[in-house]
Amino acid sequence: MAVYTNVSADEIASFIAEYDIGDVISFKGIAEGVENSNFLLSTTKDKYILTLYEKRVNPKDLPFFLGLMDHLAHKGINCATPIADRNGNNLKELCGRPTALISFLNGLSISRPNVQNCAQLGMALAQMHLAVSDFTLMRKNDLSIEGWKRLVTSCEMRADECSVGLGNIIHREMATLQENWPGNLPTGIIHADLFPDNVFFLNGKLSGLIDYYFACSDMLAYDIAICINSWCFNADYSLNIAKASALVNGYNEKRQLSAAELNALPLLCRGAALRFMLTRLYDWLNRVEGALVKTKDPLEYLSMLKYHQNIKTVAEYGVIV
Amino acid sequence: MAVYTNVSADEIASFIAEYDIGDVISFKGIAEGVENSNFLLSTTKDKYILTLYEKRVNPKDLPFFLGLMDHLAHKGINCATPIADRNGNNLKELCGRPTALISFLNGLSISRPNVQNCAQLGMALAQMHLAVSDFTLMRKNDLSIEGWKRLVTSCEMRADECSVGLGNIIHREMATLQENWPGNLPTGIIHADLFPDNVFFLNGKLSGLIDYYFACSDMLAYDIAICINSWCFNADYSLNIAKASALVNGYNEKRQLSAAELNALPLLCRGAALRFMLTRLYDWLNRVEGALVKTKDPLEYLSMLKYHQNIKTVAEYGVIV
Repeated sequence: MAVYTNVSADEIASFIAEYDIGDVISFKGIAEGVENSNFLLSTTKDKYILTLYEKRVNPKDLPFFLGLMDHLAHKGINCATPIADRNGNNLKELCGRPTALISFLNGLSISRPNVQNCAQLGMALAQMHLAVSDFTLMRKNDLSIEGWKRLVTSCEMRADECSVGLGNIIHREMATLQENWPGNLPTGIIHADLFPDNVFFLNGKLSGLIDYYFACSDMLAYDIAICINSWCFNADYSLNIAKASALVNGYNEKRQLSAAELNALPLLCRGAALRFMLTRLYDWLNRVEGALVKTKDPLEYLSMLKYHQNIKTVAEYGVIV
Repeated sequence: MAVYTNVSADEIASFIAEYDIGDVISFKGIAEGVENSNFLLSTTKDKYILTLYEKRVNPKDLPFFLGLMDHLAHKGINCATPIADRNGNNLKELCGRPTALISFLNGLSISRPNVQNCAQLGMALAQMHLAVSDFTLMRKNDLSIEGWKRLVTSCEMRADECSVGLGNIIHREMATLQENWPGNLPTGIIHADLFPDNVFFLNGKLSGLIDYYFACSDMLAYDIAICINSWCFNADYSLNIAKASALVNGYNEKRQLSAAELNALPLLCRGAALRFMLTRLYDWLNRVEGALVKTKDPLEYLSMLKYHQNIKTVAEYGVIV
């Protein structure tokens, strides 16, 4: 939630001179996105988001991310999409950072999604999964089971600094997931970070999906598990069954889930809970005093993990196989 | 440069329902203003800035600030101006904070102003000073000579933590200013914080002045001194004479400065340098580890102060009395 690089009026004017987007009329840093510098650019033609990619994004991944957004937009998915300059380039440089000009999406993210929002999210997620079926670029999920193992190794000895007993819980959960993690479910490109702040709504209708910077190749149903955790829990960390079933049923309307995918959901939700707990724990253990970015609480995901550990079948999510 | 208060989609929707400004289509926190939470709100009618006033603004001062902006706008000054709701109120509450909806000004602030920018700034400042002559509200300048004395008392013992010898310099400068500070120059409402980031330009023309939250009653020429320091110094802290004379001459074109005002400028510039050095030093000495706001360097103003201490007459600024 910050701007890491300052761009002067002269720099932005000469940058956009390479595009057919009119003249600058306003340019403001926005408090959006944890890892990059984002600006809202208004020109005589339209509004845009200008993103300068900061250190945590690997520049080698940018053609994949921008290519994916471009592909989705051409398939009619409502998503922010990169704008090319007059030479057809959408990946540029500004102030020494890789930079992309992105279309502006109307809408607002919703901090407390309701059942209807969850149903629409499910449909939009399925449509995105269908739309990427012929996208040809690939990106390995660095934060799947192998990545978790590395995080477990680096965190488990110090995890009890965060909560007593956490190291042991993580160690045992990692062993369970490694033994049981599904290997034969349908795969494709997943968003992998579709939290409520990455989904816009306008007049009660989903208006777009943003922030594709964790997208990667993985099991499609794992994307649903990430959404169940981030969209469907009550404040007391019990699952809101109405929201979870609305999300899964919404998805199912657009892309039919197999029995194997549905039955795997409780385990995928455990994996998704462990994944976000581990990255948050890593950030928490390695937090820098004075950093601009606030560390998120790893223990929220411990509560969700415990909830899913007690689930016997997907029917307990309100889902009928 | 941060958003301190999160406003949900529901909260913003019910807030703007009390205004005739159409429906929300986008709402984003912006990285602007050090002391308040600012959002860019787009509706079906127009663009606006929504400001939630945080702790450092005294709510008792808000009717003065909003009244001033409203007064200036009615006088044809290009400035952000508060929008009233259907009941005629422009000071409201949102998320427990005093809140105002402000018109959106096109334009960009310029980090490296040129001579032309300085000339336009001088003219705009004079026009603002003329426009407030019949504004009836008052606000004492808490950061004039009495306020500096309090800051000197609280900082001088520890000032050498920032730079060896600084405590002594501050002590002596305060004594000089107290003895010589002018008491009979024309007064009125001054902006008191007209740094380059508070002035917008569009296509090379000054398009507006923002951020009136330090405005107060004081000597009009003191506002020019603040601008000379923040607009007219070279990177090596020598004064850019072309910029300083353009600023003063631009001002003079719209509001004729008296010989007394011109002759007082070197001393007023010393006072303005001490004022910003002291508040920055106070923030620096009382900085909080992990704070979102970066502390500004007090020593920039020490360099400017030393420059002005060596000035014998205003002619050395390129200004003819």
